[in-house]
Amino acid sequence: MVLRLDYRQADFESRFAAFLTTKREVSVDVEADVRAIIAEIRARGDEALHDYSQRFDRIDTRTLGLAVSAKEIEAAFEAADPEIIAALEFAHDRIFSHHSRQMPKDDHYVDALGVELGSRWTAIEAVGLYVPGGTASYPSSVLMNAVPAKVAGVERIVMVVPARNGVLNPVVLAAARIAGVSEIYRIGGAQAIAALAYGTETIRPVAKIMGPGNAWVAAAKRQVFGTVGIDMIAGPSEVLVMADPDNNPDWIAADLLAQAEHDVGAQSILITRDEAFGAAVIDAVERQMATLGRGDTARKSWADYGAVIVVPDWEAALPLADRIAAEHLEIATDDAEALAARVRNAGAIFIGRHTPEVIGDYVGGSNHVLPTARSARFSSGLSVLDYVKRTSILRLGSEQLQSLGPAAITLAQAEGLDAHARSVSIRMNQRGEGPDGGR
Amino acid sequence: MVLRLDYRQADFESRFAAFLTTKREVSVDVEADVRAIIAEIRARGDEALHDYSQRFDRIDTRTLGLAVSAKEIEAAFEAADPEIIAALEFAHDRIFSHHSRQMPKDDHYVDALGVELGSRWTAIEAVGLYVPGGTASYPSSVLMNAVPAKVAGVERIVMVVPARNGVLNPVVLAAARIAGVSEIYRIGGAQAIAALAYGTETIRPVAKIMGPGNAWVAAAKRQVFGTVGIDMIAGPSEVLVMADPDNNPDWIAADLLAQAEHDVGAQSILITRDEAFGAAVIDAVERQMATLGRGDTARKSWADYGAVIVVPDWEAALPLADRIAAEHLEIATDDAEALAARVRNAGAIFIGRHTPEVIGDYVGGSNHVLPTARSARFSSGLSVLDYVKRTSILRLGSEQLQSLGPAAITLAQAEGLDAHARSVSIRMNQRGEGPDGGR
Repeated sequence: MVLRLDYRQADFESRFAAFLTTKREVSVDVEADVRAIIAEIRARGDEALHDYSQRFDRIDTRTLGLAVSAKEIEAAFEAADPEIIAALEFAHDRIFSHHSRQMPKDDHYVDALGVELGSRWTAIEAVGLYVPGGTASYPSSVLMNAVPAKVAGVERIVMVVPARNGVLNPVVLAAARIAGVSEIYRIGGAQAIAALAYGTETIRPVAKIMGPGNAWVAAAKRQVFGTVGIDMIAGPSEVLVMADPDNNPDWIAADLLAQAEHDVGAQSILITRDEAFGAAVIDAVERQMATLGRGDTARKSWADYGAVIVVPDWEAALPLADRIAAEHLEIATDDAEALAARVRNAGAIFIGRHTPEVIGDYVGGSNHVLPTARSARFSSGLSVLDYVKRTSILRLGSEQLQSLGPAAITLAQAEGLDAHARSVSIRMNQRGEGPDGGR
Repeated sequence: MVLRLDYRQADFESRFAAFLTTKREVSVDVEADVRAIIAEIRARGDEALHDYSQRFDRIDTRTLGLAVSAKEIEAAFEAADPEIIAALEFAHDRIFSHHSRQMPKDDHYVDALGVELGSRWTAIEAVGLYVPGGTASYPSSVLMNAVPAKVAGVERIVMVVPARNGVLNPVVLAAARIAGVSEIYRIGGAQAIAALAYGTETIRPVAKIMGPGNAWVAAAKRQVFGTVGIDMIAGPSEVLVMADPDNNPDWIAADLLAQAEHDVGAQSILITRDEAFGAAVIDAVERQMATLGRGDTARKSWADYGAVIVVPDWEAALPLADRIAAEHLEIATDDAEALAARVRNAGAIFIGRHTPEVIGDYVGGSNHVLPTARSARFSSGLSVLDYVKRTSILRLGSEQLQSLGPAAITLAQAEGLDAHARSVSIRMNQRGEGPDGGR
């Protein structure tokens, strides 16, 4: 049974607070296993990759090769349904165009004292992109992870994807071609993450690893963090829908189920001002669930983590929405734009009755990799910023050193750092002694 | 003895590669201890904080109170050396002014199909700032962590600082006052991190925790990550100086020692085109070391991790600099500006003979919290971006849904997600049925 909460009930706050802390992820302790796999890859490189692929994916990469060849990629692209290719290209162009607006600008200026300051953005040289196998192998995620890298100017985009029994999803390969992925290897699991972080004979290492994966992949990303950068560790997906009773309950039910069908840990929440509307949506969910290919997953997610919250007015709902800090927030009300402007914590907001969250999953143009599990309180969705880094630049001449030096010396001395103080004072006391006189 | 490498030697590449992977941090396994401390704070709140403070810091917070009072802060400010206060205020104003340029701008536009897209930046509501006790208790770090939060518009900036034997550094309190820190608690260690993440009776939880700390603090930050955001886990500091023989060896030696005196794990590297100049700098380092208050620390750091690398020309040095990816890079050469433009991986670059890195530690205006241990390959120094988060916004009317819907349905079906497809198709097939007709 889906959870029902009513704001006007005396115990609402305690029930809502408990609901917020519900853990939706099963923790699997694979730390030690993963540590051993990483050590093997570091010690034996390609040979270890071959052995793990044989064992876990039942595929002979010694014969097939670790790299997916250009010919294989071409063949997958040619064999794919032209309608799917067209949809991927449509999505690609919209994602590329939107992300092009995100490229941060360099800044360089001279302040009133003549000090030159700058911020310079450069692309990360090489990134790895993990693509899961099986049912979670989404071509749309290939676009969402690779396109911002391309926009940022990353030179090497290295994709890894497990080929269970030798099989690769041709649509995933087609998406990689469309997105401009540079290299693809048919490997997965913790061993693929280790290969990306440390390199092997065949695979040159990358500087940052992106993309979702199972518990082994997540643990491996955590363990190699520091040697390489990683993106967020994504949790199960969630949607919060704020809908008034004027909506068609079937539309809203479809949106809730679109989250629920992802994963048994996914979460779908409806906030409404009308109890009867809430009941109608619950009925529609039950009805629609029966017809879904992944109905069992959706049913479990909805029963375990779904919720319908009735509020007296939207004023009461806003603080709840900020506390939920949903990955996806749909606002299907008359004054949706005004309400959206007042929400502080959400990964993405979908405004109005004709903006189902699913549009954002594929073709809206914005990124579908968004902060899950309340992390929208402190983090953002994937963007070009995740593929660049900033170098700050400072330049003083001897005049500027005379202006700034005394305060630096005072603070260095206050912190007990003699060499810090000397590094400034030695230059101030030998003013103009440098070979270039001033600057 | 400091390591000397010569680019022209046959074994240079293997020796340089080995040098790059030198681990400079002592790993202390405190995971289990920290897990127990966090559990205690979650279970017993303030009472557990009082107990730990008594035990680890020998201070009776039951009597003194966890919070540092406004009166105490005022008293520290009044008692501090006016020259230090003036230097802190000078530094504050320069940091504030520089960081004000970093505030990202919202973006909102309507594309050719009539789809509205937006990116909206909002401040994180509350951040915690860890300030270490003892010799690593730096007032300058309080400014560097708190000022960008203030610029971003963070409402609550909550500082924690251990008061060993009841003693707090008055200059740290003064810096907090100048930076506009909202609350200060006299607690430290893993227990302080747990209190910030989960809250206690006295301390309301924050959404993100920043600031350096010892092994316990670092482990606690890793363990609470997810519940709250964290900044990078800072490693020991490093500087790379590229200097030609026209420099005064004493100036360069002072800069190398300014890193080395921080920590026995700090690293100071000189790249020069002239072996004799390298030898002169090494002599100057030895001479200056004897006169430093923290000479023992500097001596150990220099002997264990210092290096002088001789290259035939700057062309050869650039790829080495990118592989080192130094936290701080000083370029003291004739063509410093041109060389700097060609460096890709560095946290901050200090250009010319009159820009010692120490200026950036205190009064340059840029942030001194920078990526360590080669992580400048994939990450950036602290900035206003670390205190804000982005919400993406999407709005379609029924016309736009007709344009984008078919591709979304095609991709949803290709991914086997029925409810995704239905969430779009149900709206397309009932065009205009929503109560607002179009949008």
